[in-house]
Amino acid sequence: MGNADFGYPSKANGDNNGVQRVEVPPPQPFFKSLHYNLKETFFPDDPLRQFKNKTASRKFILGLQYFFPIFEWAPRYTFQFLKSDLISGITIASLAIPQGISYAKLANLPPIYGLYSSFIPPLVYAMMGSSKDLAVGTVAVASLLTASMLGSEVNATENPTLYLHLAFTATFFAGVFQASLGLLRLGFIVDFLSHATIVGFMGGAATVVCLQQLKGILGLENFTHSTDIISVMRSVFTQTHQWRWESGVLGCCFLFFLLVTRYFSKRKPKFFWISAMAPLTSVILGSLLVYLTHAEKHGVQVIGDLKKGLNPPSITDLVFVSPYLMTAIKTGIITGVIAMAEGIAVGRSFAMFKNYNIDGNKEMIAFGMMNIVGSCTSCYLTTGPFSRSAVNFNAGCKTAVSNIVMAIAVMITLLFLTPLFYYTPLVVLSAIIMSAMLGLIDYEAAIHLFKVDKFDFIVCMGAFLGVVFADIEIGLIIAVTISLLRLLLFVARPRTVVLGNIPNSNIYRNIEHYTNANQVPGVLILEIDAPIYFANSSYLRERIIRWIDEEEDRLKSSGECSLQYVILDMSAVGNIDTSGISMLDEVKKILDRRDLKLVLANPVAEVMKKLDKAKFIENLGQEWIHLTVGDAVAACNFMLHTFNKPSSVKEESEQWNNIV
Amino acid sequence: MGNADFGYPSKANGDNNGVQRVEVPPPQPFFKSLHYNLKETFFPDDPLRQFKNKTASRKFILGLQYFFPIFEWAPRYTFQFLKSDLISGITIASLAIPQGISYAKLANLPPIYGLYSSFIPPLVYAMMGSSKDLAVGTVAVASLLTASMLGSEVNATENPTLYLHLAFTATFFAGVFQASLGLLRLGFIVDFLSHATIVGFMGGAATVVCLQQLKGILGLENFTHSTDIISVMRSVFTQTHQWRWESGVLGCCFLFFLLVTRYFSKRKPKFFWISAMAPLTSVILGSLLVYLTHAEKHGVQVIGDLKKGLNPPSITDLVFVSPYLMTAIKTGIITGVIAMAEGIAVGRSFAMFKNYNIDGNKEMIAFGMMNIVGSCTSCYLTTGPFSRSAVNFNAGCKTAVSNIVMAIAVMITLLFLTPLFYYTPLVVLSAIIMSAMLGLIDYEAAIHLFKVDKFDFIVCMGAFLGVVFADIEIGLIIAVTISLLRLLLFVARPRTVVLGNIPNSNIYRNIEHYTNANQVPGVLILEIDAPIYFANSSYLRERIIRWIDEEEDRLKSSGECSLQYVILDMSAVGNIDTSGISMLDEVKKILDRRDLKLVLANPVAEVMKKLDKAKFIENLGQEWIHLTVGDAVAACNFMLHTFNKPSSVKEESEQWNNIV
Repeated sequence: MGNADFGYPSKANGDNNGVQRVEVPPPQPFFKSLHYNLKETFFPDDPLRQFKNKTASRKFILGLQYFFPIFEWAPRYTFQFLKSDLISGITIASLAIPQGISYAKLANLPPIYGLYSSFIPPLVYAMMGSSKDLAVGTVAVASLLTASMLGSEVNATENPTLYLHLAFTATFFAGVFQASLGLLRLGFIVDFLSHATIVGFMGGAATVVCLQQLKGILGLENFTHSTDIISVMRSVFTQTHQWRWESGVLGCCFLFFLLVTRYFSKRKPKFFWISAMAPLTSVILGSLLVYLTHAEKHGVQVIGDLKKGLNPPSITDLVFVSPYLMTAIKTGIITGVIAMAEGIAVGRSFAMFKNYNIDGNKEMIAFGMMNIVGSCTSCYLTTGPFSRSAVNFNAGCKTAVSNIVMAIAVMITLLFLTPLFYYTPLVVLSAIIMSAMLGLIDYEAAIHLFKVDKFDFIVCMGAFLGVVFADIEIGLIIAVTISLLRLLLFVARPRTVVLGNIPNSNIYRNIEHYTNANQVPGVLILEIDAPIYFANSSYLRERIIRWIDEEEDRLKSSGECSLQYVILDMSAVGNIDTSGISMLDEVKKILDRRDLKLVLANPVAEVMKKLDKAKFIENLGQEWIHLTVGDAVAACNFMLHTFNKPSSVKEESEQWNNIV
Repeated sequence: MGNADFGYPSKANGDNNGVQRVEVPPPQPFFKSLHYNLKETFFPDDPLRQFKNKTASRKFILGLQYFFPIFEWAPRYTFQFLKSDLISGITIASLAIPQGISYAKLANLPPIYGLYSSFIPPLVYAMMGSSKDLAVGTVAVASLLTASMLGSEVNATENPTLYLHLAFTATFFAGVFQASLGLLRLGFIVDFLSHATIVGFMGGAATVVCLQQLKGILGLENFTHSTDIISVMRSVFTQTHQWRWESGVLGCCFLFFLLVTRYFSKRKPKFFWISAMAPLTSVILGSLLVYLTHAEKHGVQVIGDLKKGLNPPSITDLVFVSPYLMTAIKTGIITGVIAMAEGIAVGRSFAMFKNYNIDGNKEMIAFGMMNIVGSCTSCYLTTGPFSRSAVNFNAGCKTAVSNIVMAIAVMITLLFLTPLFYYTPLVVLSAIIMSAMLGLIDYEAAIHLFKVDKFDFIVCMGAFLGVVFADIEIGLIIAVTISLLRLLLFVARPRTVVLGNIPNSNIYRNIEHYTNANQVPGVLILEIDAPIYFANSSYLRERIIRWIDEEEDRLKSSGECSLQYVILDMSAVGNIDTSGISMLDEVKKILDRRDLKLVLANPVAEVMKKLDKAKFIENLGQEWIHLTVGDAVAACNFMLHTFNKPSSVKEESEQWNNIV
């Protein structure tokens, strides 16, 4: 290898002595790399792959099947499937009816809207959704959130019509937002709600929802509109004289019944139907009890009249006028994201079990369309709740037909059976909500987080405490902020570790992790564990200098040979920006002034490209960039033993070139 | 090596056959690792190192020297230093006086406050600052920002006293904010303003400031209060009949004179004093001209009366009452951050030249104190402007005594020379500002950004266009948001690359970068280039599965042997959270179902610790984690050649254990 080989940019010559140069990757046209980056960002799953090399008509059918998966599975639908779907559909309908009514109460809406919302949206999802196990319906957390966000603008008892219309409008915007995210391939925004955030948020929301049920269980007429634990407790304990024991006893009995059946079904999964049927059984028992004892005249509140008939159209009810529009949009976006996150997570987990694939962006379009159509047909926000989907899965559903069966069951109820709910006591609904919510408080997951990752635990507790003590929105904001801060902190404060040689090998690893690794005399090897960006370049400069200072102090005190080379292992540096390159420049200058030599090991393609463009490689010298830490150490050792001390950098590299 | 060696957790046994296990790092007490992490986050420069093993009195002196560096250098001050500092101090004073008056006009404050601000703050900085080259004074951008932010709340011409008091209050809060950031060791917040952001922002702000000077140059009386280019242009061209040619001609002549001297001094750095003296010369010439021709009666506006005397106290003028408090706090924080970022960047660059060190947090405390004291003595926001510091550096200053000299010169001016400025034409001040601003538009840096890093260029242009077309704040928000999005995008969409073997070596590298690298038959090696966090775990799962699908398609079409092992190179995965661990779990399940085997190579200490706690290692099998990709490939190849196909995972690993 002569001088010529160090020509710039050099070509690969890996066969010479086994030494391979680190080359600058071949330049790519700007638009090609832009195209690649955009594709990786927005189409990581490459959804268009199946469209390749197909005829136009085939492409049309594939496209139709993409947006309406029902066209894909309907032709293969068998009678066997129908039997399973019929059973699971009826099972989830028996859960959907009481839950629908309960959650509508939670959203401060007339109970009938809960039933409406279990009729149209499941039909839409059955056509457009790609999950086979999701059962569509309203959810407690989004219902409560709707109540608290809209309630701060319009009082539901004083102005029920406006409140109802605002709820439809919020649902409409939630749908538009969900569908747009899906169409724009921005589904990854949901990923920013981490598992820890969701555990904490759900636990907090469930606690808050349970606390709200004290109103129903204790039969209170006046209750705070705030959701935080302090307001609720004050509201409960300042009116102890208003507590109704009839209501309380009934509530506790039903709650006990529901919890026992749930516990039983959890122990013996074969009997899942016992806990699935329990809410409807409670409703029937409760209604009979009230009907027979006329308890409605003794302080037990009942549902009362429910209008017979199917969903009335509500497209003309959407409110697009100024003072309320912003509230509706804000409520729509926040509840939409929460509901969507739950629905997608639920869909994904069941898909994992049955080994099929869920496309997040496609699901978002399905959820969005379902809510847009829902908002025009008197439904409020729906998604795929965990409890109902789990029952659907356990009941052995095969396809989304179970949703259609459920919708038909709800339709029959709406057409003929609504008068039967006249005597249903509200306290039973509260008990149903409470028992469902207690299952959402996943303390085991929180303990797991504490054991594995303290930071995730802080995020989780932040969300939980924020929701319980302040407000649902505040809890969510706290959790997302902490999560993002963690990401930024990772980038702002990357780890730098000292590497040492693992005995009898050419491998260099963290000396803190591999206690048998030995540092190389005269050489300090540092590994940087993150991309070098503006957010960490000042830190890294200071930290690298401090490592060098500390190493020199250590060598001085132990009397070993002095430090001469600093090798930066860049393997884990995925990218660099202009601030980062300036930082390397500065470090090089500082080292030059202290008569130390900077050596780089294994910069990745992206980093090499930018270092080259910024002329840093020219400045450092291509011969000071090595493929592995081992090569770099070998080169340094060669220098150390051939010349006593690196004289001037230029001179030395010439000597090296002439010798090799 | 028998079965026993795979016991869990295993101990290092690096001397056996050169094969080293990846161990779980020794457990650390929670508080020890917390302490380490907090130290790395807030004290990366380890400022307390020098206090170790010192007596109490020595510690006190060191502490005093830490907060007041003057005690450190004053004892070593020599007459030689004084000579240099005297020359540079007088030079910067000649620049500071006209600049101070000009920038005060820019902030809509009476001109005398510009002089006040060049008297007290430099004295404070001389005691507390750690830079030897920084010259303290007001800056154009912060002045304009103050005018636009306070101006939106209070009209400076209608209510000058309140406006002035608000300016002091904003300065007070800027100081408090700066000092708190320094004391709380949060200086790294400034790092989030990247170099690209600052280039774009400064260029935009300079453009905006120049446009504002059209008012002075054209002698207009009415002018828009907006700063965006469209409003300014409309304001200028709708009142063409108001343009005063006398003013315009004078302005253009002085601007030409200033630009020529600057160009000359730039070409011959020895004559830096020519451009440094030019503003004062312009002021003197302009004043003489007006005095002799009585141009003030022909449409050339002059400064008029300036009150003689030193800074009056203003501590009682601070406004802490409700409607204005929030404006003052907001203005203070934003202008404070901008000013501080400029000051620290300037200090750092000159420290680089002279090879001494600047502690960002300490500088912030100094800036903060200087502004707090300033706000109580009729000064508004000051920092270390680039232009003045560069002149100071070129004039050969040795210590902060040059600031003291400048302060004394300004004091003399305030006490005796203010009447001399009566006839100074405003148009000369406009010319001074314009010539200073034109130097801030760093188009060369923007071109460099475009060449090296397109994304940084977008950030830069975002800031520039935001400032020019919308608003100074909006430009800043755009740039910071884009910068943060880039960081998040890096984490959300990490690169995964396929590795291949470099011929005649045990090294595995990106096959796109090293075109001679060969893939290993039957084995897919993927490298993940970022920490695995909630924000990217869904993406990574999908992307890894897609890599496997694509590889299987490729192998099928080329008729090679089928895929059996997937090796994940975890070297660049700096950290993992619970969502990331779930992702690995899911990937393992999917691979198991497809009869593929997951193998990990080189997880770092932090990752090993968490995988261990989450029982993932137990689940995967410690024997499927290797120290290098080479070891992992060797193990896979051994399996491939010994057994035709990996049967069941458990069985196989037992066979492997029995054989080795």
